[in-house]
Amino acid sequence: MKNISVLGSTGSIGRQTLEVAAANPEQLKIRVLAAHRNVDLMLQQIELYHPDMAVLTDKEAAGELLKQYHGNTEILSGQEGLLAAATYEKVDTVLGAMVGYAGLRPTLAAINAGKDIALANKETLVAAGHIVMEAVKENHVNLLPVDSEHSAIFQSLRGGYHPCLTFTETENRSSEVKKLILTASGGPFRGKTKDELKQVTLAQCLKHPNWSMGKKVTIDSSTLANKGLEVMEAHWLFNMPYEKIEVVIHPQSIVHSLVEFNDGAVIAQLGIPDMKLPIQYALSYPQRYDCSFGQLDLIKCGTLTFEAPDREAFPSLQIAIECGKAGGSLPCAFNAANEECVTAFLNGKIAYLDIPDIVRRVVNSHIPIPHPCLDEIEETDQNVRLMTRILIQHQ
Amino acid sequence: MKNISVLGSTGSIGRQTLEVAAANPEQLKIRVLAAHRNVDLMLQQIELYHPDMAVLTDKEAAGELLKQYHGNTEILSGQEGLLAAATYEKVDTVLGAMVGYAGLRPTLAAINAGKDIALANKETLVAAGHIVMEAVKENHVNLLPVDSEHSAIFQSLRGGYHPCLTFTETENRSSEVKKLILTASGGPFRGKTKDELKQVTLAQCLKHPNWSMGKKVTIDSSTLANKGLEVMEAHWLFNMPYEKIEVVIHPQSIVHSLVEFNDGAVIAQLGIPDMKLPIQYALSYPQRYDCSFGQLDLIKCGTLTFEAPDREAFPSLQIAIECGKAGGSLPCAFNAANEECVTAFLNGKIAYLDIPDIVRRVVNSHIPIPHPCLDEIEETDQNVRLMTRILIQHQ
Repeated sequence: MKNISVLGSTGSIGRQTLEVAAANPEQLKIRVLAAHRNVDLMLQQIELYHPDMAVLTDKEAAGELLKQYHGNTEILSGQEGLLAAATYEKVDTVLGAMVGYAGLRPTLAAINAGKDIALANKETLVAAGHIVMEAVKENHVNLLPVDSEHSAIFQSLRGGYHPCLTFTETENRSSEVKKLILTASGGPFRGKTKDELKQVTLAQCLKHPNWSMGKKVTIDSSTLANKGLEVMEAHWLFNMPYEKIEVVIHPQSIVHSLVEFNDGAVIAQLGIPDMKLPIQYALSYPQRYDCSFGQLDLIKCGTLTFEAPDREAFPSLQIAIECGKAGGSLPCAFNAANEECVTAFLNGKIAYLDIPDIVRRVVNSHIPIPHPCLDEIEETDQNVRLMTRILIQHQ
Repeated sequence: MKNISVLGSTGSIGRQTLEVAAANPEQLKIRVLAAHRNVDLMLQQIELYHPDMAVLTDKEAAGELLKQYHGNTEILSGQEGLLAAATYEKVDTVLGAMVGYAGLRPTLAAINAGKDIALANKETLVAAGHIVMEAVKENHVNLLPVDSEHSAIFQSLRGGYHPCLTFTETENRSSEVKKLILTASGGPFRGKTKDELKQVTLAQCLKHPNWSMGKKVTIDSSTLANKGLEVMEAHWLFNMPYEKIEVVIHPQSIVHSLVEFNDGAVIAQLGIPDMKLPIQYALSYPQRYDCSFGQLDLIKCGTLTFEAPDREAFPSLQIAIECGKAGGSLPCAFNAANEECVTAFLNGKIAYLDIPDIVRRVVNSHIPIPHPCLDEIEETDQNVRLMTRILIQHQ
């Protein structure tokens, strides 16, 4: 039995994680639920999963929850509550599904408490990959990817030499890996020119053709910023230079990603586009639970296609990769600027093409810190957000 | 350094094996070459690879070779020579690339001499899978598939639980495997109706769209008998019931085969259609040599398609699977009848559609022996060939 803490339990990944747990009651026990401020859903989740602990980081919402709930689950609030949720002693694996940069501190706390991490929060690695990976190594914990692409690569890497390694050891095998190939659906605007993108609305952005995801990642997916963040995530997870990471557009989202080995063999993981599969694998690893959320039928699929990404119409991908290559505090700056722009776009304050445009201007003007410590990353995040907001106001 | 004996060195797989060895001189040493009767090519191969031993099973051809060759390589002949080639003490791995049933005895001899086997000769498993697999287990040798589909499955299986097993142990993991999916190009006649197949010529048969192979397997590929033999091969190699083995037509021959796991994940191996890749992997396993014979470019490929096999136009697939399920001496009978019919078709004695027709009649009239010993298999092979030849004469 694995004891799980779900950080971000009311979001899209969090809810699907609870479905996975419900489907595997013999293997998975939910010990902790943590979310931002959705009182009603948290109340329902507590009734269903009876965790030892539940946390709402918004103190007002936590107060409301305390008022309405009178059971055995301990209710905590605020950042202290979130840290308690990340480090609770009865927990084996922390599933990190917070949105954005906010996931960094609790993820690091969980690693330092010796918890295995199932990571859905890519921004943690984007902003502070060198610090997170160092902590993973020092604490001998497993860091298991939940992103479908990285889960696919993780599974595919096992086709290489001596594949039964704990995750942190895979870096030793990088000499047999020629290339990681991340697939991207291309989002709702695949095939559109830059000119055509000028007119797109928020509603169009939120209609992803294949994946059901939260708003932030759905917007990132439409701009390809999400794929850029994933390239950085893959760089850290698999200890792979950027030159060895490729992006291929695959509109059907059936091939979740691929690994090319030094002998020409390519190993891929395929499946229907359902996040519950990579979530479950991150929790079941190194086993696979006898529970499937849907079956791939290749004959029904019929056709799988692959094409190059349009880097002109979707510049966010290229900006992200450049920031990744430059390293230091630039990936953190990219992420902060992107998060602020997406929020502004969601709130109707800027147009769609303003997102990559403002992000580009912000990262171009950022003076990078070469080996930022955690405090310098925090500072970068705050300063860059401030500057981005100013640019947004003047847009 | 691995010491290799190549049985069938002048055939298509044999020649490609020597290319693989030449490309990896630090890792692979050719110790033994064995072939049927191609004196000129054997002479060239001896000059190039300087094996300790060279064998031609045709005694007349071996005499001619002895006349022309005056070097240090020991020249042997006949079935005794072939057995010596299969069991030579300085050899670690025997690559079995003989055509058809003839591979059975030397493969068994090699296993019993404790050699690892790189198996390209599927008929060995089709005819006597239970005997071969038992010998593999008793002698603790590795049996590594060379067929591209089985190599793909073997590589993909490592995506499952505890994948760093020697080959013979993979059977313990079958509970995590839901299905093996063998891909088939569909051959040159994919899409043709049974009626259209009446007119096809030998020359058309020998034009395989993707793979460069010997004549026998090229004909088998066009009738889908080859895929039927591969289903039986997979049954034995991976200890998988027939119900869990599927065939999917994939005309581009890029996805070499797939494994579906119990959680819905599908792992596949992809690559350009070049037999040198699976040959090298069978010889480099568990490593991958840093040598590639061509690189897959998904974007250039563009489109991969999948469809159901047409079991009416290509009945050989179904006949083979039925024989496999029935078991006993029936798979051996299927193989013997098919080999004879293909030979007769190659010699212009029967029409294309006579192949499945005669094979069907032969296996229908065969009274199966439930658990045939090696002698009973030999007897089945001979009797069935006799009967098939009679039917061919009366066609």
